[in-house]
This record gives sequence, C-alpha cells and structure tokens, in this order.
Amino acid sequence: MVRTPTPEDKFSFGLWTVGWTGTDPFGGPTRPALDPWEYSDKLAELGAWGITFHDNDVFPFESDEQTAKKIVGRLKDAADKAGLVIEMVTTNTFTHPVFKDGGLTSNDRAVRRFGLRKILHAVDLAAEVGAETFVMWGGREGAEYDGSKDVYAAFDRYKEGLDTVAGYIKEQGYDLRIGLEPKPNEPRGDIFLPTVGHALGLIAQLEHGDIVGLNPEVGHEQMANLNYTHGIGQALWSGKLFHIDLNGQRGLKYDQDLVFGHGDLISAFFTVDLIENGFPGSPDAPRYTGPRHFDYKPSRTEYIDGIWASAQACMATYLGLAEKAKAFRADPRVTEAMTYAGVYDLATPTLAEDESVQDFLAAAEDIDLDRAAQRDYGFVALQQLAVEHLIG
Amino acid sequence: MVRTPTPEDKFSFGLWTVGWTGTDPFGGPTRPALDPWEYSDKLAELGAWGITFHDNDVFPFESDEQTAKKIVGRLKDAADKAGLVIEMVTTNTFTHPVFKDGGLTSNDRAVRRFGLRKILHAVDLAAEVGAETFVMWGGREGAEYDGSKDVYAAFDRYKEGLDTVAGYIKEQGYDLRIGLEPKPNEPRGDIFLPTVGHALGLIAQLEHGDIVGLNPEVGHEQMANLNYTHGIGQALWSGKLFHIDLNGQRGLKYDQDLVFGHGDLISAFFTVDLIENGFPGSPDAPRYTGPRHFDYKPSRTEYIDGIWASAQACMATYLGLAEKAKAFRADPRVTEAMTYAGVYDLATPTLAEDESVQDFLAAAEDIDLDRAAQRDYGFVALQQLAVEHLIG
Amino acid sequence: MVRTPTPEDKFSFGLWTVGWTGTDPFGGPTRPALDPWEYSDKLAELGAWGITFHDNDVFPFESDEQTAKKIVGRLKDAADKAGLVIEMVTTNTFTHPVFKDGGLTSNDRAVRRFGLRKILHAVDLAAEVGAETFVMWGGREGAEYDGSKDVYAAFDRYKEGLDTVAGYIKEQGYDLRIGLEPKPNEPRGDIFLPTVGHALGLIAQLEHGDIVGLNPEVGHEQMANLNYTHGIGQALWSGKLFHIDLNGQRGLKYDQDLVFGHGDLISAFFTVDLIENGFPGSPDAPRYTGPRHFDYKPSRTEYIDGIWASAQACMATYLGLAEKAKAFRADPRVTEAMTYAGVYDLATPTLAEDESVQDFLAAAEDIDLDRAAQRDYGFVALQQLAVEHLIG
Amino acid sequence: MVRTPTPEDKFSFGLWTVGWTGTDPFGGPTRPALDPWEYSDKLAELGAWGITFHDNDVFPFESDEQTAKKIVGRLKDAADKAGLVIEMVTTNTFTHPVFKDGGLTSNDRAVRRFGLRKILHAVDLAAEVGAETFVMWGGREGAEYDGSKDVYAAFDRYKEGLDTVAGYIKEQGYDLRIGLEPKPNEPRGDIFLPTVGHALGLIAQLEHGDIVGLNPEVGHEQMANLNYTHGIGQALWSGKLFHIDLNGQRGLKYDQDLVFGHGDLISAFFTVDLIENGFPGSPDAPRYTGPRHFDYKPSRTEYIDGIWASAQACMATYLGLAEKAKAFRADPRVTEAMTYAGVYDLATPTLAEDESVQDFLAAAEDIDLDRAAQRDYGFVALQQLAVEHLIG
Repeated sequence: MVRTPTPEDKFSFGLWTVGWTGTDPFGGPTRPALDPWEYSDKLAELGAWGITFHDNDVFPFESDEQTAKKIVGRLKDAADKAGLVIEMVTTNTFTHPVFKDGGLTSNDRAVRRFGLRKILHAVDLAAEVGAETFVMWGGREGAEYDGSKDVYAAFDRYKEGLDTVAGYIKEQGYDLRIGLEPKPNEPRGDIFLPTVGHALGLIAQLEHGDIVGLNPEVGHEQMANLNYTHGIGQALWSGKLFHIDLNGQRGLKYDQDLVFGHGDLISAFFTVDLIENGFPGSPDAPRYTGPRHFDYKPSRTEYIDGIWASAQACMATYLGLAEKAKAFRADPRVTEAMTYAGVYDLATPTLAEDESVQDFLAAAEDIDLDRAAQRDYGFVALQQLAVEHLIG
Repeated sequence: MVRTPTPEDKFSFGLWTVGWTGTDPFGGPTRPALDPWEYSDKLAELGAWGITFHDNDVFPFESDEQTAKKIVGRLKDAADKAGLVIEMVTTNTFTHPVFKDGGLTSNDRAVRRFGLRKILHAVDLAAEVGAETFVMWGGREGAEYDGSKDVYAAFDRYKEGLDTVAGYIKEQGYDLRIGLEPKPNEPRGDIFLPTVGHALGLIAQLEHGDIVGLNPEVGHEQMANLNYTHGIGQALWSGKLFHIDLNGQRGLKYDQDLVFGHGDLISAFFTVDLIENGFPGSPDAPRYTGPRHFDYKPSRTEYIDGIWASAQACMATYLGLAEKAKAFRADPRVTEAMTYAGVYDLATPTLAEDESVQDFLAAAEDIDLDRAAQRDYGFVALQQLAVEHLIG
Repeated sequence: MVRTPTPEDKFSFGLWTVGWTGTDPFGGPTRPALDPWEYSDKLAELGAWGITFHDNDVFPFESDEQTAKKIVGRLKDAADKAGLVIEMVTTNTFTHPVFKDGGLTSNDRAVRRFGLRKILHAVDLAAEVGAETFVMWGGREGAEYDGSKDVYAAFDRYKEGLDTVAGYIKEQGYDLRIGLEPKPNEPRGDIFLPTVGHALGLIAQLEHGDIVGLNPEVGHEQMANLNYTHGIGQALWSGKLFHIDLNGQRGLKYDQDLVFGHGDLISAFFTVDLIENGFPGSPDAPRYTGPRHFDYKPSRTEYIDGIWASAQACMATYLGLAEKAKAFRADPRVTEAMTYAGVYDLATPTLAEDESVQDFLAAAEDIDLDRAAQRDYGFVALQQLAVEHLIG
Repeated sequence: MVRTPTPEDKFSFGLWTVGWTGTDPFGGPTRPALDPWEYSDKLAELGAWGITFHDNDVFPFESDEQTAKKIVGRLKDAADKAGLVIEMVTTNTFTHPVFKDGGLTSNDRAVRRFGLRKILHAVDLAAEVGAETFVMWGGREGAEYDGSKDVYAAFDRYKEGLDTVAGYIKEQGYDLRIGLEPKPNEPRGDIFLPTVGHALGLIAQLEHGDIVGLNPEVGHEQMANLNYTHGIGQALWSGKLFHIDLNGQRGLKYDQDLVFGHGDLISAFFTVDLIENGFPGSPDAPRYTGPRHFDYKPSRTEYIDGIWASAQACMATYLGLAEKAKAFRADPRVTEAMTYAGVYDLATPTLAEDESVQDFLAAAEDIDLDRAAQRDYGFVALQQLAVEHLIG
C-alpha cells in the first residue's frame, strides 16, 4: 500500500473524468451527474491538489454570461475552501451539434467565428480562476473523408485561431500558456493534430508559438501506435511540455481512458521515471514540474463508489511507480547496466569540441568494425532490471 | 488500360525495390539479385524517368573508395545511356550489424562517428551523380526499451547529425536538399521520428533546417494509424514536402511495401488528387512537383517477371488514378458538392480583414445556432462522387 | 452511374442505421429521430428490399407488451404496404445500464435471467414478423479487466444462453436461424466473441449449433486486424454464413460504420466478388444467397438529406462493385492469370484418389525443387488486373 | 530477485529462439549461430527443463536422412546428458523459397505434396525423440491478395493436410498431439488461421480433431488486437489448450518476440495467474499442465551474453509473476472484491436446475431493474488490487 497523496504531489483531475456518467456509443448513462463542487470536495478529500474543467462541465452550453459566472464562482469558492487549485481550464468545442465539423476549422465560417469566440470567452474564464494552462483539444477538427477538407486551408485556419487566442492572452496580460492536445482519431475519422509531432510542427509555424505547447495524453499517442514516453521526451527537448494527461489504454481501439497504469504498465513506469527523475544522462535537460493531471474515465460498470476508487487508483499507481522509479535509478546495478548499454554515452557530442566537418572527414577512421558490430548492449538485461524493480 | 508512362510523368524507383530478393524474417531469398544496371535498363524500358539508390544497393559495404566509384560510374553511365535521371541518393545505415543501435543516435560514439562519416560520403556521391534529394531514413534510430535510450540526448545527437550533414551540403555548395523519412517502427520497436509530424518538429529546431524537409512514405504513416494525405498536406503547408515514397499497406502490421494502390485505394486516389491537382480551395498553396517515387517491394511470391509486372503496376495505377482525379475535379457535380460541403469556404479567414480580436469580441453574435447545427454538409455524398469516379 | 436497386438485389437496412441520430462519445445528437415507418417508407422508395431492427429501435425499453405489439404492428403494416420484407430481428441487450456487464454473461445472475428473457421475447417477435434470421450481437459480453471475469464460466453461460434460445426456436417450430455477430471490442475493452473464428469455435460446442451461424460485419473483423473476405470464406466453408453486415472501416480505431465501400475498397470488391460469383475454383462450394444487409451509420455531419444519400451510396457501391466483379471473372486475361497463379489448382486434393499415406510416403519425391522455388506466381499481376477492373 | 528455475517449473525454449542470429528485414545477422547442443547445454544450466526445435533448426534443409538422423541423435544425447526433455518438435515449412506460397495450401500441388511429406517426416522425428506435442505453424499459408487464393479450397487442403498428419500419428501409434499455432499476418499479408478462434473453428471440422489442439502465442493474438488470456481461456474451455508460446509484444506492429513480460505486463500477470491458479470460480474446469514454453527472440542489439540474459529474464519474470499471482489469489481482500464483483456468481447457471424455458418464461420477472442498473461492480478496485500485487 502506498502513502496517501498530498498537495505536494500535484495531482489534478478533470471534472469531466470523475463526472463521466457512462454514456458510450452503445449505451446510456449508468450513474447520475453530481454537482461540480461535489466532485471537487471529494477529490480534495482523496488528496488531490487541483481540478480542471471545460466550460460546459460546469455550466450548460446555453447559459447566459451571468449564470455561467455564478456557477463558476460557486465552484471556485468550493475549490478554495477545499484547498484545491484550478490549474487548467479548457473549452468544449465538440459536444454541441454546431461543432460537428469542427470549431476552428469547420467548413462553415459562421461556426468558426462562433467557436473562436467561445474559446476566447473560456480564456477569460481560465484567467479569472487563476489557471496556468489553457488546453485546446481539437477533437472535431478533422474529417472522415479526404475530399471534405482543404487541408492547407484547415492548417491556415488552425494557425489563425491559435494565433488569435495566443495573441489575445498576451494582449490581456494573462499568465496563461496554451497546451495543445493531439489525438489521432475519435470522434473524427482523422483528427488534424494526430500526434505530439504534428502539434510541434504546427507550433513552429505560429506567430505566438512561444506560449503554445503540448498537453500529450497517454492513450492518445498510443492510439497512433506510438511510444508515449518518447513523445513527451521530444516535447521536453523542444521546450514544449506544458501539461500532461495521464491515463491508460489497451491497444488500438476506441479511446478507453482507463486508470493510469491499467493500460501499458511498463510504459507508465518509464513515463513516471522520466517525469520524476529526468533523462538519465542529461542532467541539465528541462524537467517537467507541472501538474500530474489525470484524464481518465471510471469504467461504466462502476457506480459512485467506483468513481472514487478509480480516482484513488490513479494516484496510488502513480505514487507506487514513482517509488519504484526512484529505487530503479538509485540501484547501482542499474547505473552499471546503463553504463554498459551506453545510455550515458549518448550525451557526448559525436564531433569533438571544435572539430570541423573537414577535420572529421580527414581524420583516420576511428572504429574497430568487428568489435562494434559484436558489442553486447545489454538492453534486455537493463529492461529486466526495470521489470524486477517494477514487480520486485 | 492506361497509357504507357513517359519521362514527363517523373516516375522513379529505388534500386532496392525491384532489387529486393525476397528475404523476410521467416524466409530466404526467392530470386537472384541482378546487377544495378540491369534494373535501371529495364525500368527505363518500362517508362520510368529516374532511379534512386542507397550506397550499398550499388556497391558492397566493404568496398574501398575506388571500387565504389567504379561501380557507381558504371551505373551512372548506364542511366545516362538509358535516359534515366538519378534523382535521389540515400545511405544505408541499417543493414550492417555495427548499426544495430542506430547510426546518428547509437549509444556508441564510435558508431555515431562512423555513421556520420558514411552519410557524408554518400552526400558526396549524391552530388556527384546529380541527385537533387538526399533521403535519410533513420530506421535503426530508436529503441525497443524505454530504459535503453536517453531520449533528450538522442534528439541532441539527431540534430547534431542533421545539422552537420546539412551544413556540409551548404559548405560544399551542393544543390541538394535532405528528405527525412519517418517511420513508426520496424526494424526498431519505436523509431525516433515516427511520423511526418515528429520530423517537422525536429526540423524546426535545426540550424540548417531550411534545406531539410520530408520524404513521407504511404505505408509508414499508415503504420502509425494515420492519414497519409493529411500528412503530406501538413508537410506542404509547412513548405517541407521535398520528396515522396509511394507504395501500399494493408493496415497495422509489418511494413508491406505493396504496389502503389494495392493497399488503401481510396486514400491513394486522394493522394494522387492532391499531388496532381493541388488543394481544392487554395490555388496559391505550394504544389508538389518532384518525382513520383515508388518505394515498394515486388511480392516474394514473384520471380523476375513479377518484378517488372509490379513496377508497371505502380505506374499504371498512378496514371489511372491521375486520370480519375482530373475528371473528379472537372465534374460540375463535384464542384457543386464541394461548395455545398463548404470545402472552398475554409480558405476564407475566420476574422474579417483588419478585424481586431477586440472588435470581433464586441461584435454581435453572428450565428443562427439551430440552422448551423442542422446543416447538412453532404460529406458522404461528396465521398460517393469520389467513389463513383474511382470505380466509374 | 449504376442502375437503381430493385428488390431482387436483396438490399436491407437496419432501422438503427438510418435512424442513428449522431450521438457519439464526445457529442450529442445532430439530427432528430423519425418514426420507424418513415425510415422504412423511404428505404423502400430508394429500392431497398428489406428492413431489420432491434426490439428497442421500434418500441422503448420500458414499453409494456401491448404497446410494443401495437408499434411493431404498425411498422409491419407499413413494411407490407411498402413491399418490404422484415428479414432479420435482433435484441438490444446493450443500451440499458442494467446490461453494463453483459446480458448472457453478466456477473449478476438476475441480469442474466432478465437478458435471456428479453432475448426470448424478441425471438417471438422475430417469428411473428416473419424474419428468417435472429442476430445476436453480444456487445456487452466482455470485460475491460482480465480479473473481472471467469472466462470459463462466461463461455458456459454463453453456451447455456445460446442453447436455450436455439432450443426454444426449435421447440416453438420457428423458421429462424441465429446469426452471431462477432466484434473484438467497443463498447467493452475485450468482447468474448471477438472474431468469426471465435464464434465458429463456440458454435462447435453447442447442443443446438445446427441453427446457429454467423453474421460477420466488415468493420468488426477489420477492427481485429483481419481480412473480412477470408472470414466469410471460412464461415462459408463451415456452412455457417447465415447473414452479413456490410459497411466500411478505415483501420484500427473506433467502430466507424461507414458506407459500404468507403473503407477498404479493394477488400469490398473481393467481398462482393465472393458473394456474387462464389469461390473461383470451387463451383460446388456453398454460396451466400441471403440479404445484402447494411449495418452502417450516416456520418454525424449529415442531416436528413445525408441519411438518404448515404443509404443510396451503400447500394450504389455494391451494385457498382458487383458489375465490376462480373466483368473481372468474365475477362479471359483473369482466367489466364488465375491459371498461371495456380488458383484453380488448389481445389485438387494433395493426395491422389485412394492414395494412402503409406503409398504417398513410399512414392519417389515428385518435385523439382529449384523450379518450384523459382515459380513466378503472378499474384501481383492478378491483383493489378483486379485494380484495373475496379478503376477501369 | 526470484529463485532459480528448476525442472519442476517445466520451462522450455525453442532452439530457434536463443539461436536467432538477428537477421531482420532491414539487417543482417549480429551474432553467430552456435551448435544446437551448445544452446541446450546452456539452457539446462540456466534451469530450463526442456527444448523444442524445427527440423531445420538442427539439420540443414538439404540434409539427407542419414545426416539428419546423426545430428538429431547428437542433440538428443546432449539433451539427455543435460537432463533436458525434448517436449515438442515442429517443421519448418516457411524458410525455403519453395514454400513461398505455403506448404499445405500452396497453389502448387507439387509443393503441397512436398510440404506434407516434410511434415510427416518431422512427425516421425518428433516421435523418435519423445516429444509430446507436434506444433504446426502455417506461417506461409495465406495470401497478400484476396484474388490469389480460393479460400474454400484452401480450407479443404488445410483440413486434408491436418487429417492426413493426425491420421498418420494415430496409425503409427505415436503418443503425440498436434498444436496449431495461429497468427494473423507476417510473413503473409493475411494468414489463414489468424487467431485461436479460427483454429478452433477449423479443428471442429476435422476427422481426427481429437488429437488436434492449440499452441497459442502471446504476441500472435495481440497482433490481432486480441486478449491473450481470453484466447487461452476459450481454448481451455474447448479442451484444446495443448501447448503455449510465451513472449512479449508491444502493440500492433511486426512480430517482436520480446522476452515474456517485456510486452503487456498486466496481461502477462493474468496469463500466469490463469495457468498457475486456474479460473477463479470454476474449480473443476480443465487446467493447463503442459510446458511453459518460450517462443521469443533475444533482441538483435545483444551478443552472446544477451542471449542468456534474455532466456533467464523469461523464466525470472514468469516465476515472479507466479508468486504475485499466488499472493493475489490468497489475499482475502481479493476474494472479497471478486465476490463483490460477482466473479464467482458467473459459474451459477442462469436457469435453475430443471427449470424449463417455459417455466422460466412463465415465472414472474425477478429483477429490481433500478438496483441492478446501479450496481457498482467494483471492477476497477479489483484491477487496482491486481496492480498493487503486481508492483507491491
């Protein structure tokens, strides 16, 4: 049994996670919706540090401004009282039928304007409740059919939308950064920013890209058949890991949003290891110090008890893995195996300091090919040490 | 039956494609290797415009410089005589066991230096034979186990390698651009530049990124569960579509390298449509005018006849699809359906010219929500028009 | 443009297909539900031959028996009047929360009894309206977590349920056969009968397996990374292809239920070819003569017009492919290529008539290994002929 | 650290596993091949109980009978001396180019006869060395193109082949059972027995199916996006789990053959739990008592040391998981959670003893729908207990 989480652990939960009522493509809700403050109170009790939400997790889509403010105010009060931070806010531009072809990249300009306005309002809301990150998941920005979208124009519009929002944040002096959340598909057949990489590629083209980064979700990268830890590694290397969404996924299927660790456990171990301990051979590399945010769903088979059990499970697994990861790194056998495997060697530049490419080419060949070809990297043994620590 | 290809079609083939002898993880070769010039002569006869190769498709890994030059010279002569262009050259940093943990990102610095040197030599070779593109596929740059790589250092080394190569190209005054070829996995469990997006993200961090772009392969993006046409669309939007690799893949499995069109045919249609006709609503967007390069494998069940039949099939399918795509675009029903679907609308900026975000926010809401929610986009009807043209 | 469908084409549609209102995991409905007879009237007008439904597509879950009968009666009248057959009926044991852990294999015996009773009532209904097939899709029979199910007991219960239903059909003298519909996942993490094969395996253990067969759905097999045409081929070989569900899917993701042909078009071509023309070298093999049933969804971006356009598209694509497939088989080049490829040879038994295994072993080796190893099967050329016909 | 394995653990290894030299589709061998007895000696030293092999793992394809016998004899002697059992033998009908279109289902009858003869010879060999299981993996029985195979005829030939082999085993009085090994793809685009289910379906049609069962491999089922534990569960339920192949796979890609546990660790835990502890609520269900056979590959980055480290890792992970699984089952919290979840309830028949379907239908409805709908199954909490035990 691991220890109870504390605010220092920086665990946060989306209200829509514990608040999911179980509706799926083949079934109706299996549990009632509670009021937002009921979720936040209970999360605080379980040891969470923060909450996050979409505008319409808290107030209905049709709410007038006053009603919206009133409800958000009440949630903010509840959070304050419970000692919870509202660390991130996001907008829902996917549930209402008006967004069926997207918000920022809908083929209908009136919808694009409506979507952009809704996002800007949510940015105000985010600033107002003191969030540090504004997540944008463009779940409806995409297509089922290649002919239905001018992809060039779609990227132009995506850029226009993001630059408008980022520009507005700067103009207003908000202390907010945008975290793009990639996903390959679902609910659209193909979503425009399918992976961490595609989002990095788009950000590089933005005018205000300095405050735009990533919010990669475990299951989303895995739905693109990719390695999540590599994904957040590249995001960190690019200085763009602004937020994370932890959960579990079991292979290439619908978005499962399982409890963190209930999907690919070894991958979860190395994700926690990277977050907690950094890159093994790059002590000066940037570290992720933001929230440990869970974007999961309590399975539809669970009722209210199961909601809390699953939220606890997310945190307990993270803490358990963090302990294991500390021990893994501290184990001299691991250091030795990493040395043997050349893990630390990779931080050494390939060229010598001040070595020009001409000098390099002129230099005599510096390799014993047979020996290098026969090197035993010991990667399997190193992995087995990780598994030993994990299940040890 | 479609017409015979001509050099104007710009079809090119890797020598390793027609030259694949059929060795796979569970079986030995099923046909002999011919000499490089035998492949190029026959390709010319079939209507190809160009050939491409890895250094070691032409001369053995162990060749001394003189032997290498001699063999390449003979190939160049044969190509010239046959009227074939050598449009692209690439290096093999994956077959020899020394590269088992990668070339530019091997955990062994001696290997990194050896790999970098091999690449630089191949750059000279590429320039010498008049290639315009130097492709870099980092098939061994990756890992099976998260613990075996410092991902931060790996990206540092990848950047160092690419900047060294690109810097050298500039220094030498070569008229060459680098095309990175992403792939999610195989032969490594997870390869470092798994998709078009991740490569765009890396390029954005390079010093000499201006001459580094993409060589996306149909099947590789599909192995990451992604939409190839969207991928090359984003690459074009980023000004980075330098080269393409056309082939076929049937779902998430080993890299099949089927004949172009023998995988996902509808996707192939829209790929050709984009290449031949550009983005439907963005007439000023960049166009791809480079080679139509096939990176496929004649199935292992075929002998020599099947090699040529499969090469012809690649070109015939492309030409057939190109005709279909022209007719698709020219069909007034399609124009009407695209208008109905809002495809052209997406090129209109969301904000009006000179509209500031403050003006935008101050403006009255300009949408009839019910009407927008009930819009019939007609995407299915548009797709059916495409299918009708395709099989019509 | 293909011809208008006629009843002889035996096209049928589930009421839930055209009746889907667009609710998905991330969005609400985008169009209203019509009355069941509105769908059937329009389908008849478009050239459909039959309709199918789940009990609760027609009457609400809570309906008392009388209400249910009245509504079904009205639908039956409408269908009769429109000249439509009700060829298949099925039960919904997945939408209501009571079924959240399954119907026949729920961990709650009270639910199992309730589910079984609901199924038996639906069997009566199926018989009453003259359906020939009773489909059972156990979408909720499965698990997210291996620990939550005793798989042995689950198969015992599945068998008990199926044998009870099949036994009841026999007892009542109904002219009905059961069609099991496999699916690998969604809505459950892992569904118990994930593929055609697993269902065949279960049927082999039933007491009343003679009237239990398969209703394979294109997208479902493809979600298990499998070849649909091979799947229905094995079902036919086993004498168990009782019904089919045609639609489209683009790779390993959520269940897309696209229009037939809007997924993997080449696979759709060969599926139609098998249905329409049978196995190429096995003229005496069983043929599928049942309904051409579409289980698809009009995309959520479409409104009412798009519903009908998409239903038409399903039929038009099928008819178009059927024409192509006829021409493919009639083409002497195809016959020649199939002969060259050995397609017909496979129907010849490996042992000679009356050849005992001892005689066979005693016989001299009858193969020229080199020649056999160098055989050019011409599979790629044959495939290219198919593609030529398809897009020709 | 777990204890050293002993022969009682029944661990066995294929000679081709430790003997893999690292050739993959993009690279040559990275280590030399040792003599068969070198592998077996070392495996014995590491605590293995048995070895297995393909005929051509031991003697070359071209060997005459005498040479073959001699080499096998020497291996048998070495195994005996080392105290190793040869528990399974299999044939290689996939490496030689003659098998490029399959062995039993090749489109070339001469090849089919050659393949069948080779299999029969290997059966003799298996009997001679005292193996209990004869595995048949039809890796080349399949197709890349739907048009290239008459699937009906292919199943006829598969049946003919299997019945011939099984009949021969009976005739000769050999104490051998056949274990079919399914795989969805690789090396063929689609293999004919893609999953456990499809093999069960085929076996049900055999004349001599009583001695034909399954040899399911972890990674193979996972390459079909399926749950391995469910697969062996259905095989056990069908009385057909004759042998198992343990290894690791990370998602839908090429066949990785990782160390057992280095893929999906939670799935591996439940697999071991089922093997070691049986079905939780079905004490009288059949148990698997056969070999714990590893069919994996030491990663290509490893040299000779890495071969042994990886073989040890397979056994150590299994033993570690077995200990965890014992503790999991013995934990009263787990028993309580399983009761709460209804896991044991599923073993209770749905109908009461002697309850006829008519009585059942006549009986009053016995469910409180609201209560059943609101049941909290506690599946997530139960899963978390498993994770706690796993990493505890």
